[in-house]
Amino acid sequence: MGKAWATFGVDLHLEPAAAGAGGLRRGLTDALRDAVRTGRLAQGTRLPSSRSLAADLGIARNTVAEAYADLVAEGWLTARQGSGTRVAERAVTPPPAAPAAPRRREPGRPALSLVPGTPDLAAFPRTAWLKAARRALATAPFQALDYGDPRGARELRTALAGYLARARGVRADPDSIVITAGFSHALQILGRVLRARGVRTVAVESYGLDVHWSLLRDAGLTTSALPFDELGTDTSALAGEGAVLLTPAHQFPMGVPLHPDRRSAVVDWARRTGALILDDDYDGEFRYDRQPVGALQGLAPDRVVHLGTASKSLAPGLRLGWMVLPPSLLDEVTAAKGRIDTCGVLDQLTLAEFITSGAYDRHVRSARLRYRRRRDALTTAVADHAPEVRVSGIAAGLHAVLSLPPGTEQSITQAAAWQGLALHGLSSYRHESAVAEHTDALVVGYGTPPDSAWAGALEALCRVLP
Amino acid sequence: MGKAWATFGVDLHLEPAAAGAGGLRRGLTDALRDAVRTGRLAQGTRLPSSRSLAADLGIARNTVAEAYADLVAEGWLTARQGSGTRVAERAVTPPPAAPAAPRRREPGRPALSLVPGTPDLAAFPRTAWLKAARRALATAPFQALDYGDPRGARELRTALAGYLARARGVRADPDSIVITAGFSHALQILGRVLRARGVRTVAVESYGLDVHWSLLRDAGLTTSALPFDELGTDTSALAGEGAVLLTPAHQFPMGVPLHPDRRSAVVDWARRTGALILDDDYDGEFRYDRQPVGALQGLAPDRVVHLGTASKSLAPGLRLGWMVLPPSLLDEVTAAKGRIDTCGVLDQLTLAEFITSGAYDRHVRSARLRYRRRRDALTTAVADHAPEVRVSGIAAGLHAVLSLPPGTEQSITQAAAWQGLALHGLSSYRHESAVAEHTDALVVGYGTPPDSAWAGALEALCRVLP
Repeated sequence: MGKAWATFGVDLHLEPAAAGAGGLRRGLTDALRDAVRTGRLAQGTRLPSSRSLAADLGIARNTVAEAYADLVAEGWLTARQGSGTRVAERAVTPPPAAPAAPRRREPGRPALSLVPGTPDLAAFPRTAWLKAARRALATAPFQALDYGDPRGARELRTALAGYLARARGVRADPDSIVITAGFSHALQILGRVLRARGVRTVAVESYGLDVHWSLLRDAGLTTSALPFDELGTDTSALAGEGAVLLTPAHQFPMGVPLHPDRRSAVVDWARRTGALILDDDYDGEFRYDRQPVGALQGLAPDRVVHLGTASKSLAPGLRLGWMVLPPSLLDEVTAAKGRIDTCGVLDQLTLAEFITSGAYDRHVRSARLRYRRRRDALTTAVADHAPEVRVSGIAAGLHAVLSLPPGTEQSITQAAAWQGLALHGLSSYRHESAVAEHTDALVVGYGTPPDSAWAGALEALCRVLP
Repeated sequence: MGKAWATFGVDLHLEPAAAGAGGLRRGLTDALRDAVRTGRLAQGTRLPSSRSLAADLGIARNTVAEAYADLVAEGWLTARQGSGTRVAERAVTPPPAAPAAPRRREPGRPALSLVPGTPDLAAFPRTAWLKAARRALATAPFQALDYGDPRGARELRTALAGYLARARGVRADPDSIVITAGFSHALQILGRVLRARGVRTVAVESYGLDVHWSLLRDAGLTTSALPFDELGTDTSALAGEGAVLLTPAHQFPMGVPLHPDRRSAVVDWARRTGALILDDDYDGEFRYDRQPVGALQGLAPDRVVHLGTASKSLAPGLRLGWMVLPPSLLDEVTAAKGRIDTCGVLDQLTLAEFITSGAYDRHVRSARLRYRRRRDALTTAVADHAPEVRVSGIAAGLHAVLSLPPGTEQSITQAAAWQGLALHGLSSYRHESAVAEHTDALVVGYGTPPDSAWAGALEALCRVLP
């Protein structure tokens, strides 16, 4: 009894009508035909042997063989010596799909993109990553595959604590780190924690990502923009907000570091009011000419949440980010994450191995070199083709801001779209409550294209610049 | 300028005091010493070459070389021909760790476990998984590494749609599937969606997992227990609840399938009242003697959310689960997931490859055979050692219920703990509002131990049975 379940093959769920009119054979034939007709059994699927299915269903083998023969005769199945019984090709009539929303065809889906926000995905270190995955899987004890620590795999938190202290000046120990599925996941969690603490308003920068503001709004929080001027975000304007979300190392998208006076101002404000600083250190690894600006967290580990991500240094698809938390937030954040780790342990162990083996440093240094070359090519090309366009925010990161003559931003991004180049204007990063006068500009993500598309993207950009 | 950033080596963040008393050399020496003393630079860490660090900091190479020499002289660093400058061993005085909460030592941390909820993790198919990972990574286009579809990777949703239709009788197409980080993540999302729809109460079973009820409570929902009797959960008692959470294929932990009359009753109720059925199909793959009970979803795809997971068939650490959703819920669920996929794409592509290559079916069939042998050994051993103990819920799944004489449950689980065996009594799975008379029983997870510990766990169990 049940021996068939040990047979290697495919599982097949069927509910033949109980022996009624026509008996078991008829019931089985109908059930199989129905499964094929509705597409539940895909074309070409190999069916279990009649012996195996008979044992699974607890009926005679002959009954199954006869039902198969009936359906072969009807054309639903095919039987060939050596390849068993399969669902016939073209037997399936899939249910009609819902009509897709008509795609706007003009100006056509851009083939090239300089939209910021992703690194060059074609340069993902697949071989080194797979090597780390193999080593991580070979050495992990079987208990590592169980439900894990809700804060994330200890191996990764330990590797990150060492790396962040060394490379970013963050004061971290493994117990103060919580792994998340990227920055957005962390912001979602923090939004819920802040709201539960009674926070109503979070100060944000005049320029940033709407998707982040939306996540805070989803948590029931209002976002209000701080002024922005030539010294960067003006943190002296902070007042009764319960928290502030900043990109101090490299303002996104403007590209400047937070002025030292304003770094002090925000820390003083947080200490005075008990508010929290969310330090979005999204691309801290990428700076080109000098020592990077240290993470704000080093100044006030009790008031700053340091937020990092593998999305820019490796790939967004990994869905791995981290928070370094003040001790007072740890329990609330862990509970808000859902009491259970939501990040796959295999990728976490792989990233830990990737960092401790030195592969991460090697990858970042090599990527930095490539991106710096692109940045240099961008500034040179713009100087040649559009000498009146000023390029800024180029000391670090994977994007630059190109100033434009007033009133030209929208027509230039549209012209780019017609050329097959996706390009974002600065206005799409402006907070609705920003007070600074709007400047026409482009935010050019020179890290985005693969090497093979980079020259073409740069050419297309130069063609549309004034 | 900046050439050093291309050097392969480690990144080192330092903030030497600006040239003040003692100049640059003194500032750098202090900063390095501080980094070593506080443990920010771990013992044995190799420092960048003086040329590289000088370029990074924008100072003269000699200044760095002199600072290194000072610290070697002070014993903080070591310099050896060929291995560069490193942080000296034992130079580090790590900050004192917070005192750990005293661990209760009696009766000692159990070495063996028959707690249900996890499969045999030592049997995770590491080689086959890694092979699938290699193939998935080799064939994925680079765009797959970008921020993905918030519903999850299309490749996995397609593979699951085929598998669930074939093996579990689920009517699914890739567009109606949302990938989650396991069942708990799905329940968290559904809880928020139900609450936002105005649902206040979710009916649950008299026996189940407290962690699931907690997740619903976290979302602001009340849980109320349905009666349980010899026919299983009594769904005819459903009234004005907005949803019901059920384990119809194999009640957890009682082990019975939902009675056909009660399957009809719950579907009728959902159709009549517009409520939703959450079908927790947690171990649908594991049944031993006959055709499994089909997923409830096939009866009413418009009212049932089918919930599956790789936690029992592969490992919880993968953090991969799925929901098959009625079309009317799709947008709300995707938005509640956070508009962005939270599951790593590499594991998703690997699982897709694992399913479509047939490795998943092979693994499930082989695991089924092993678990059935354990189940048979358990029933035989109990019949031999404790003939008055009734074993039930054994047709499927990775656990069984062992009835006990009234009043003995707690003393038996305690005796087991003293023997080094972790064992759960039925009472820990009882909902606070359950009305059924309490029965003393054990819930024995025979799938939990690795093969090497199984015989010992079974022996320890038999020793404590009455």
